[in-house]
Parts: sequence; structure tokens; C-alpha cells
Amino acid sequence: MQADDAVFVPIRAGAGPWTLEEVHRAPSQGFQRLLGIELREVRPDGVTAAIRIAPHHLNSVGFVHGGVLLSLADSLGAMGAVQVIGADQRTATLESKANFLRPTQGPTVVARCVPLHVGRRTSVWSTTVENERGQPVATVLQTQLHFAD
Amino acid sequence: MQADDAVFVPIRAGAGPWTLEEVHRAPSQGFQRLLGIELREVRPDGVTAAIRIAPHHLNSVGFVHGGVLLSLADSLGAMGAVQVIGADQRTATLESKANFLRPTQGPTVVARCVPLHVGRRTSVWSTTVENERGQPVATVLQTQLHFAD
Amino acid sequence: MQADDAVFVPIRAGAGPWTLEEVHRAPSQGFQRLLGIELREVRPDGVTAAIRIAPHHLNSVGFVHGGVLLSLADSLGAMGAVQVIGADQRTATLESKANFLRPTQGPTVVARCVPLHVGRRTSVWSTTVENERGQPVATVLQTQLHFAD
Amino acid sequence: MQADDAVFVPIRAGAGPWTLEEVHRAPSQGFQRLLGIELREVRPDGVTAAIRIAPHHLNSVGFVHGGVLLSLADSLGAMGAVQVIGADQRTATLESKANFLRPTQGPTVVARCVPLHVGRRTSVWSTTVENERGQPVATVLQTQLHFAD
Repeated sequence: MQADDAVFVPIRAGAGPWTLEEVHRAPSQGFQRLLGIELREVRPDGVTAAIRIAPHHLNSVGFVHGGVLLSLADSLGAMGAVQVIGADQRTATLESKANFLRPTQGPTVVARCVPLHVGRRTSVWSTTVENERGQPVATVLQTQLHFAD
Repeated sequence: MQADDAVFVPIRAGAGPWTLEEVHRAPSQGFQRLLGIELREVRPDGVTAAIRIAPHHLNSVGFVHGGVLLSLADSLGAMGAVQVIGADQRTATLESKANFLRPTQGPTVVARCVPLHVGRRTSVWSTTVENERGQPVATVLQTQLHFAD
Repeated sequence: MQADDAVFVPIRAGAGPWTLEEVHRAPSQGFQRLLGIELREVRPDGVTAAIRIAPHHLNSVGFVHGGVLLSLADSLGAMGAVQVIGADQRTATLESKANFLRPTQGPTVVARCVPLHVGRRTSVWSTTVENERGQPVATVLQTQLHFAD
Repeated sequence: MQADDAVFVPIRAGAGPWTLEEVHRAPSQGFQRLLGIELREVRPDGVTAAIRIAPHHLNSVGFVHGGVLLSLADSLGAMGAVQVIGADQRTATLESKANFLRPTQGPTVVARCVPLHVGRRTSVWSTTVENERGQPVATVLQTQLHFAD
């Protein structure tokens, strides 16, 4: 598989908020690369990204696998959180909840993630995934912990 | 990517519970193949599977991406449900909720999915993902709708 | 306790969507009455209600108990669903997920519930609870099953 | 309503883990009293409690209101967390997720809450609510934040 050949280098070693450039580099390796995440907009108040659906994104009955939608949302929530943490903080996802609203086969899914709450210790992110026609496919809520070492 | 070359054939076209043989074929294509899901046990009262962690499973800071755990659990819940639906039914995941309990870098993650409730119209599945040492990494609850066309 | 003296009469015996009048009667008995739910607006595309906070709504450290917010949201989601089910259907709450965004002591909490998805077999409802100043206190997502007997 | 006449005194003013005696006092006032929570066992590794169902616990169609189950679970998770926080910490519920498994009319519901994870910064609690016959009625997962001021 493609990513295995590459040397894996964490985007960030130290604490503190990520730069936009660092967030933009996230889909270049690891699971985000395997998913094929294409960033469209990155801001502290929202992240938008898309995936072009291929056969390797499908489940056993030929629709986009729920895990693709969950993984896309999880990635975007984290990309939002790393922009808003404090100078001495890192972030980890505490929990994530998804409702699946309709099946889709692509050809693309587009996700928009916005913060519902940004506090000092936690932030809560809401992601809506839509199909090509702008219909909601899934909605995801996730909580990020902001912590100092 | 590997799966794209293959012709994608849904495991099941018609309604009704899947055979064990059909469930065992699920990781041979699509997103389950991309994830590298290895089935260890498949029964109507539980499904166990593992993923050997490679660089393409990692997130931007070098740990297993939460989406890998979510996707593994989502796959197992569906594999449980297809075994318990009625003769005229199909199933779809309505919702999924995960709590992440500790980060992991592998070398494997093992997930065990068991039903909390199996009704006529819905079933609820609980998946625990553990690391190599048997420590819980994530816990996932998901609801499957059982529906006739 | 007040409601115990009354004879409890279910609002609806048969299947089918409720009338606005029936929904408006819901807070007159049972747990909704105990909570003190005051309906402000009832429509198929949204329900708004408030609770005036009293000492019996508080938790052990003097803030509004999370269960009050959960119960208010759960009530509103169901009130939404009973308006949109089919003529031969009833509804039951399958699951509910809440994120608590800030503590509150009242003097009121106001909840607005809107549908994210209304299908034939299920509907998904999103409730935002706000404090006196319009700040979000909690956000709740819940799934209603629509079923025929 | 009964609790309104009483002067409300928070069980705890300062930080730090609660004593068993303090936890046992929690159902004596506020929303826990309104719910009628009866503690059966309180330990750092689990809390068990029951509610005797009365008409004021019912929803509009005559079953126990989902909010009663959510509120009972939320109370127990917090009672667990206050026993395991650090000497300089308080706790707040970040989020809660419930699956409703079958309707019940009582005459009692019994809830057992155990920790799935106890860390320094968070803990995760799993509550199972059962009916009189030991059948699961609801299952709830919630996350508690442990924080210093």
C-alpha cells in the first residue's frame, strides 16, 4: 500500500496550535492519505474537505462505507481543534457520535466541520457530510480534549 | 490503489440473513480490504477481528487514526446484524457512538463486537477495541435498522 | 407529588400523527409536568419549549442537573416525531446523544428542536438548549423509530 | 413542589473526591430528590440505584419517560466520578449517549453504573438500566471531565 514506503513523520512534535500550512500537510500521509482527503478550506472557525469515491471506499453492498464518513469527520474535527488549542496544549478526540441520514455511492462526499463550542479545556465540533447534490449523508458531533503535558 | 483494479461485486444482492461464508468474504474487497480487516471469529452472537497497524493507519501525530477504530467497529456491527435480520430484511447503520480510551500505535488492534439487543426492527451492537496487551482502546455502540423493502 | 393524584390517561391510544392540540396537552401530566415544560411553539418542522428553573431542577453542586436538559430535549424530539409519522405508525426513541457546553443556573432554559432528517422509517432531531442570554448550554441529537404494529 | 421549600445547599463547596457519606446525601435534594433516586450501593468502582415508578415518571403514552432513565444514568455517572477525581479536581459531564432497548412501565427501574476508564483528566462511565425482571431497558455511556480550577 502506498503510504508504507514513505517514512512517517508526525506533522507536529511539540505543543501549541498548528499553522494553516501544517494542517494542509496532514492529508499527505497516513490514514488521511489512504482515505484520499482533499482539503478545500481550512480556518479556525471551520474546515471543509472532500473525498472522491472509488471502489475501495465501498461497503459490502456497494455504498460508501460508514467508516469513510466517520473517518473524514474525525479528521476534520481534529484539524479544527489543532487550530484553537493553547500554546502549551495538545488535543485528543474524546468521543464521536454519528447519525447516518441516507446511503450514497458518490461520486464525491463533501464534509463541512464547524465548532459548536471552543473552551479552554475542550472543544465540540459538528460535521455535516453531503453528497454531490448537497443532501445530508451523515452528521457527526465530536469532543476534543485540550491538554497540557 | 489495490481495490480499484478489481470489479466490485456486492456480497449480497437480495434480502435475508447472510451465511457465515458470505460474512467471511466481506473483507476481500472495498473499504474493509483497504483497512486490512482480518476476521478471527464470526458468529450470530459476536464477531472478532483484527487489524495489523501499518503507517497508512496512522494520524498526523503518529498514533492509530480514530477513523480506523471507528471503521473497524462499524464493519463488525454490520457483520453482526446481517446474521440476525429476518428473511425479508436488509440492514443499515442508523448511528454510531465511540469513546476513545487511550492512544495506541499497534502493532495490532483487536475488536470484539457483541449484540446488546436484537429485536425485530433494530439491533444494538457493542464493540470493544483493545491493543496488543488487552487494554481497551475504544468502545463503540451502534444501532442497526432492520427493514424490508 | 402532584401528578400522582391524577388519573393518568395516555394522550394517544391509536396510531397516526398527533394533532397540535394533542401535542400541546403532553406537558399536562406525567414527567413532562414534573419537569415543568412550557411549550412555546409546536410545528411539524420544530418545537420550542422552556423550563423555569427551581431548586428541584438542580444537581448536587447547585447547577441545573444534566438530566433536566436531557429530559427536555428527549420530550421535544418525541413531540416533533409524533407530528411526522405515518397514519399507521407510532414512534419510539431509539437513542439520544448530548454534549454539555456550559453549566447554567437558570433562571430559565429554552430548547429549540428541529428535524435533521425525516424519513419513512426514522427521523433524526437536533435540539439546542440555551440559557437566558442565548448561549448554548447543551446540544442533543436523537433518533426516532417510526413503526407500524 | 416539595424541594422548593428547602434551602438548597450544595453537597460540596471545595475541590477533591467526595466521601461515601457525601455521595449518599446527594439524593436528598434537588433533581435527584424529584426523581426519587434510591441509592443501593456506592463504591468508587460502581454505583447502583433504583427508582420506584409513579405516574409522574411516565411519558405521554404511559411508559417510563426516557428522560427518567437518562437522568438516573447521568446522576450515577457523576456519583462515580466524584469518588475518583484528584484532590484538587472537580468534575463535569461532557457528554452522554443512551440507547433505549425496550419500553418499561415499572414498577421499578434499577441502574448499575461502572467505570470503563478512569484517567487523570477524564473518566468514562457505563450504566445499564434494567426492569423488574432484569431485562435491559437502556444503556448509557458518559464522559466526565476532571478539572482543576
